Amino acid sequence: MAKKKSNQSDIGLIGLAVMGQNLVLNMADHGYKVSVYNRTTSKMEAFIKDCEENEPSAERVVGFAELKDFVKSIAKPRKIVLLVQSTAVLPHDRDAVDATIAGLLPLIDKGDIIIDGGNSNWNATIRREEELTKAGYEFIGSGVSGGELGARFGPSLMPGGSKKAWKSLKPIWEAIAAKVDPKTGKPYEDYKKGVPITEGETCTTHIGADGAGHYVKMVHNGIEYIDMQLICEAYQLMKDLLGMKPDEMSKVFGQWNEGLLDSFLIEITTDILQQKDPTNKRKWFVDIVLDAAGQKGTGKWTSTSALDMGIPANAIAEAVFARCLSAIKEERVAASKKLKGPKNTKPVRGKKALIEAIHDALYSSKICAYAQGFQLMAEAQNEYGWKLNFGEIAKIFRGGCIIRARFLQKITEAYAKDPKLQNLMLDPFFKKELHRCQENWRKVVSLAVLNGVPTPAFSSALAYFDGYRSAVVPANLLQAQRDYFGAHTYERVDKPRGQKFHVDWPEPDRPQLKA
Amino acid sequence: MAKKKSNQSDIGLIGLAVMGQNLVLNMADHGYKVSVYNRTTSKMEAFIKDCEENEPSAERVVGFAELKDFVKSIAKPRKIVLLVQSTAVLPHDRDAVDATIAGLLPLIDKGDIIIDGGNSNWNATIRREEELTKAGYEFIGSGVSGGELGARFGPSLMPGGSKKAWKSLKPIWEAIAAKVDPKTGKPYEDYKKGVPITEGETCTTHIGADGAGHYVKMVHNGIEYIDMQLICEAYQLMKDLLGMKPDEMSKVFGQWNEGLLDSFLIEITTDILQQKDPTNKRKWFVDIVLDAAGQKGTGKWTSTSALDMGIPANAIAEAVFARCLSAIKEERVAASKKLKGPKNTKPVRGKKALIEAIHDALYSSKICAYAQGFQLMAEAQNEYGWKLNFGEIAKIFRGGCIIRARFLQKITEAYAKDPKLQNLMLDPFFKKELHRCQENWRKVVSLAVLNGVPTPAFSSALAYFDGYRSAVVPANLLQAQRDYFGAHTYERVDKPRGQKFHVDWPEPDRPQLKA
Repeated sequence: MAKKKSNQSDIGLIGLAVMGQNLVLNMADHGYKVSVYNRTTSKMEAFIKDCEENEPSAERVVGFAELKDFVKSIAKPRKIVLLVQSTAVLPHDRDAVDATIAGLLPLIDKGDIIIDGGNSNWNATIRREEELTKAGYEFIGSGVSGGELGARFGPSLMPGGSKKAWKSLKPIWEAIAAKVDPKTGKPYEDYKKGVPITEGETCTTHIGADGAGHYVKMVHNGIEYIDMQLICEAYQLMKDLLGMKPDEMSKVFGQWNEGLLDSFLIEITTDILQQKDPTNKRKWFVDIVLDAAGQKGTGKWTSTSALDMGIPANAIAEAVFARCLSAIKEERVAASKKLKGPKNTKPVRGKKALIEAIHDALYSSKICAYAQGFQLMAEAQNEYGWKLNFGEIAKIFRGGCIIRARFLQKITEAYAKDPKLQNLMLDPFFKKELHRCQENWRKVVSLAVLNGVPTPAFSSALAYFDGYRSAVVPANLLQAQRDYFGAHTYERVDKPRGQKFHVDWPEPDRPQLKA
Repeated sequence: MAKKKSNQSDIGLIGLAVMGQNLVLNMADHGYKVSVYNRTTSKMEAFIKDCEENEPSAERVVGFAELKDFVKSIAKPRKIVLLVQSTAVLPHDRDAVDATIAGLLPLIDKGDIIIDGGNSNWNATIRREEELTKAGYEFIGSGVSGGELGARFGPSLMPGGSKKAWKSLKPIWEAIAAKVDPKTGKPYEDYKKGVPITEGETCTTHIGADGAGHYVKMVHNGIEYIDMQLICEAYQLMKDLLGMKPDEMSKVFGQWNEGLLDSFLIEITTDILQQKDPTNKRKWFVDIVLDAAGQKGTGKWTSTSALDMGIPANAIAEAVFARCLSAIKEERVAASKKLKGPKNTKPVRGKKALIEAIHDALYSSKICAYAQGFQLMAEAQNEYGWKLNFGEIAKIFRGGCIIRARFLQKITEAYAKDPKLQNLMLDPFFKKELHRCQENWRKVVSLAVLNGVPTPAFSSALAYFDGYRSAVVPANLLQAQRDYFGAHTYERVDKPRGQKFHVDWPEPDRPQLKA
């Protein structure tokens, strides 16, 4: 509970869309007085009215129609959270976040702290932090994950910025973040309106300097893309290879949610698959939903960042491409009438065993996907000069966020045991699991391939596993080709790295370059 | 042969690295007088000396130590080709190409034409074309493919820019480009120094406005990445599953080069695999080359562009990620001692049949890879307002460039038959080939997966084929998940596209948001 010296607010928030509203209520529930402002005043007024009618903590939420009054109402050093949609991608791009900051600067004082809680690109966050720090203000770019319910009852919060700024924000961020049982790593979920959870380990930590928080949030989202794609592939295999109906699959996912795969996404899948079409109770809900997926950009950014830094994050990229392919629904329907699948499909026997195998394929692929996400963060810290604590990051992913899962307790333990772990797959626990599951994983991918069921995420994760554990890959031939046509040179297996060689290749049937 | 009115040069070239030197000699062989300039004068002098000693067309190459003399020596409107290394990626980035242009502007006249023949990013080319056109000059960004031998004896040239500028450059570009037999699509290769080839269809065409040429060149390189990766996977399968030695594999590739896969890259693979280590004739060359591949950025750009535009080009991206994975050699060697492959590998029987199956897997994957490349160009023309002729593009890929292949004659024919072909896989010829080969393709990927051999390109191409021909993919479940946790809404299969729906999801064990 925060101590207040006056009738001033503890914190302010600008931007009352869904996420903003819910963060405000969460802070108010925790005893903080919150000033709110929205560019469209009627939206602020409607929110205040709704609070007064429905929220036990309404007295701690104060609305302002004028930005200057909003600023004045906040105790110094002011903490002002922005939840404004960001569109900037490149460092020099300017967007609504920049416009909001520009509007605030004439009204606030040096030392005040602006916190960007939106899904901003880390490049923009690095630039903003630099600009504002130079001008004497503080800036935090904080990832906020968990959707609207997370924001309301405990999100996972990933703040990046100076340690000084974090010190001011820390009590509030720690109060409102999700809480997990320190022993099991399971989130506490008995939060009732006005009666927040105060015990347990909090799902926020200082991620690092400037853009570190938004970068880690982006990787979280990239992992979310592949997590969802893996579940979709498991669903399709049960549907196409075993002819299972949604309610039967719901039971399977429900069972999986009791075990190693226990997670928010498996839990909601269990729920979704038992839903009926709201307009026709004889149909399953999932069967009437169009199979064309949208995306918000963070999965794409994750893949682009991987390519830029040269990190093999192929499974994450495949999940993004799977959404791209889903989006061209009409083209697929037309193509399905022309392009045929295999004639001799492999008969599927042993339903129970195959369901178990699909479980293991999903689980193994998930280990690879997380390994790729953590490799990305490891490279980004070199690229951007951050100092990331992967154990702490895994810890705050355990509650509040979309990828929260029992699994993350194991990742937390892996990095606790070995903070310099080179790859998650090498941790003794995950290594054992991969060894145990690989036969089933291979069986599932093989069956999918022979029967014409696309499993880009299962397959690419497996190719990653097999590639990573290969002392020798066929890039020797590739380097020879590059030396042949482009004089790119090659290294030798029997010489130190960095020593370059070149062959003056003859080209048959063509004159030699150096006659 | 160009007509000259004076002792002035027909064209000038700045940048005498390997590509620049060879383009100069090619132009001189075709009767053009070429002025040359290099920032480091000694390099220019050495080149001129080498010409005088070795080149029948040396009299038509004139070197200049001063940029102003170089400019004066060229007939108006001047055509000046730059072969300067470009590093700019974003539109606002400035690099050595910009610096060279800035140095030229005070010396040249309005109406003069600057041609950038380097591997510039299309974004930079769009910006340069706009700036120079506004200032009264002409600018062409031209892709040049074929490595040093291509530049010398006939490259594939992909110019983008105004039609007016192209009209001036066209005679020279058409003369020096590779030539193919119009009936078979096979390149003529009997060019001897000083006696160039003048018959046949030329491998250049006006690609489109501003950055179109460099974009198409980039996609060419993206296809080159996957083409090479596919050959590497075929090689690894023969090595790992069949225990074949390089010389035996060379014979197989040599046979393949007589058939459907006939191409430059298969040809050089045949050659590479029969080479011995230059330092120890008892070893095979390919066995002493280190399996850590480099990259120059265009494959990465192709994948990033695909992600940005939402085009499923997963196989091309997998080829880039495979290079990234190859690069961490020491990490892979360490991991290979800890992570084990499958215990129960599937026995491989029927060597001849498996080699044939690997052929079909490579061929089918190649069709998918080219389909992805052409989809990318199709989307880019919408994105950037170009008007691309895919038949013409396939035509100029038939000779000179690294991906030149018999295969491209079939793509040329496909777009000649149907210029609006939605996807290469839907062309009757390629469709028939995919149907014919898919059983072998699936067999190979299945075997690779069961035996622990990574085949990311074969697998991802197959997932693309299977996904593209699927009227229904599991993105319905994914959209339901997104609606559940993020209120992202969904579309229905029984309602028009664009109509959005949302379910007020209950979350078990947690309070509902709207009480």
